[in-house]
Amino acid sequence: VIGEGAHARRSLRDLLELEHVGEHIYRSRYLYDDPYALFGGQYIAQALRAAGLTVASDRSPHSLHAYFLRPGNPAAPIDFEVALDRDGRSFSARRVIARQYEEISFTMSASFAIDQEFPSVQVISMPAVTDPGISEPLVMPRLFSHEGRRVEQTFPHHEIELRFWARCTEDLGTDRLLHACALAYLSDISTGLAALDTLTHQSAASLDHSVWFHQPVVANAWHLVDLTPQVAARGRGWYTGSLFDDEGVLVGSIAQEALYGSYIGPYYRYGP
Amino acid sequence: VIGEGAHARRSLRDLLELEHVGEHIYRSRYLYDDPYALFGGQYIAQALRAAGLTVASDRSPHSLHAYFLRPGNPAAPIDFEVALDRDGRSFSARRVIARQYEEISFTMSASFAIDQEFPSVQVISMPAVTDPGISEPLVMPRLFSHEGRRVEQTFPHHEIELRFWARCTEDLGTDRLLHACALAYLSDISTGLAALDTLTHQSAASLDHSVWFHQPVVANAWHLVDLTPQVAARGRGWYTGSLFDDEGVLVGSIAQEALYGSYIGPYYRYGP
Repeated sequence: VIGEGAHARRSLRDLLELEHVGEHIYRSRYLYDDPYALFGGQYIAQALRAAGLTVASDRSPHSLHAYFLRPGNPAAPIDFEVALDRDGRSFSARRVIARQYEEISFTMSASFAIDQEFPSVQVISMPAVTDPGISEPLVMPRLFSHEGRRVEQTFPHHEIELRFWARCTEDLGTDRLLHACALAYLSDISTGLAALDTLTHQSAASLDHSVWFHQPVVANAWHLVDLTPQVAARGRGWYTGSLFDDEGVLVGSIAQEALYGSYIGPYYRYGP
Repeated sequence: VIGEGAHARRSLRDLLELEHVGEHIYRSRYLYDDPYALFGGQYIAQALRAAGLTVASDRSPHSLHAYFLRPGNPAAPIDFEVALDRDGRSFSARRVIARQYEEISFTMSASFAIDQEFPSVQVISMPAVTDPGISEPLVMPRLFSHEGRRVEQTFPHHEIELRFWARCTEDLGTDRLLHACALAYLSDISTGLAALDTLTHQSAASLDHSVWFHQPVVANAWHLVDLTPQVAARGRGWYTGSLFDDEGVLVGSIAQEALYGSYIGPYYRYGP
């Protein structure tokens, strides 16, 4: 156990160091005490890293789809077991099961592709926002190794930021997989859900989370996170999101569904 | 083999009849000759049916995430093997592997939930379009047991319909699972990709496909299918879509990613 609470010194690179403990099985020993259930972004980032460790290094993740089945305990090891579904000429398909206490707590499918040069068509545009260099800091306590900047909001009277700049502050080197894992980690910040939350006066826990990587990721560069709550119904909420680089290129897209009515506590505040 | 070509008499109910051939293994024997690879909607609908056959009848699917790993052969049986990841108090999580010739050709994760009464908040609105009762017919040759109606397009000079009414014309009875399977079948119509297609002068094959069911599905009622191409880059395209009932309620959402550059032929035309 490396520390206590949200402000203990932590490293995303350490979090992504998994121990090879069996055939296609990788263990997280990045343990810490925390009053909350394991942050979903950690599950996704570690599972993507585990899957990527079984894939040739010329392939990068282009999409992932995750289900959260049980709350994770941040103070207990997690085993990630990878199924190698297919290695084709240009794509590799993987599925990952995460277990704590020998129970399945999380599953994820992901696909990796060889990079192709190809004409780009981007229909969606980045909204006009203030530059990260001149924006106010945004504190993101659950997201370690990251910094944030505030921008104008789509729902201005809302308590929760739906649009903000974020970047990874830790040097991730040149391994593209680590950069994709960092963006996946960031992508679960869930403020989109928190927004629906406020509308329905309930709090939410993640059910499923998808990320599509449209471009190679440079996690140390600023990304505009732009989240759009879409619907809450039948006890479930759903939002989508876009991740743009500072030139307006759509680097990634996300979609997340959440369960309402289960108290998980405040995990995203701006401050100080 | 029940017939040849797109116009052979076919039944969605027959397609969803799977044979129980082993523990949590279900086989499709709905075989036909067709010049194209198996329609992705069939994979998704049959896999969802297989998963649902292992779930208590008080639970309905609320989301699914599928990967297409190899082109399917419509004239060969498909085995769907279901993993029962979790049966919780109100949710059931499943994963499905589809095999042809003992190779994995398709995988899907899905989650099922007990229906909850809950206040609804719908941020997204249905666009104003002509009523299905007064709209022109739209021919959807690959989608059997369905009819379509044309409406005004978001991209008016486009060859492919991105917005249209559709409904299942076959009586599906009262089993909610069958209705969800029918909507999943419809959801893979892929015109959103065909649109990016035209923009990039390439044709596309599905890579991954997600569906979220926000409300109980009545597949025999009209649904407005509203697809939005978002981006094509690095050889892959991505679009999102909304499925509204005729009162503007968001029943489902979809997101699909496709590979460009592989010829799959025209599979969606309006006519006659």
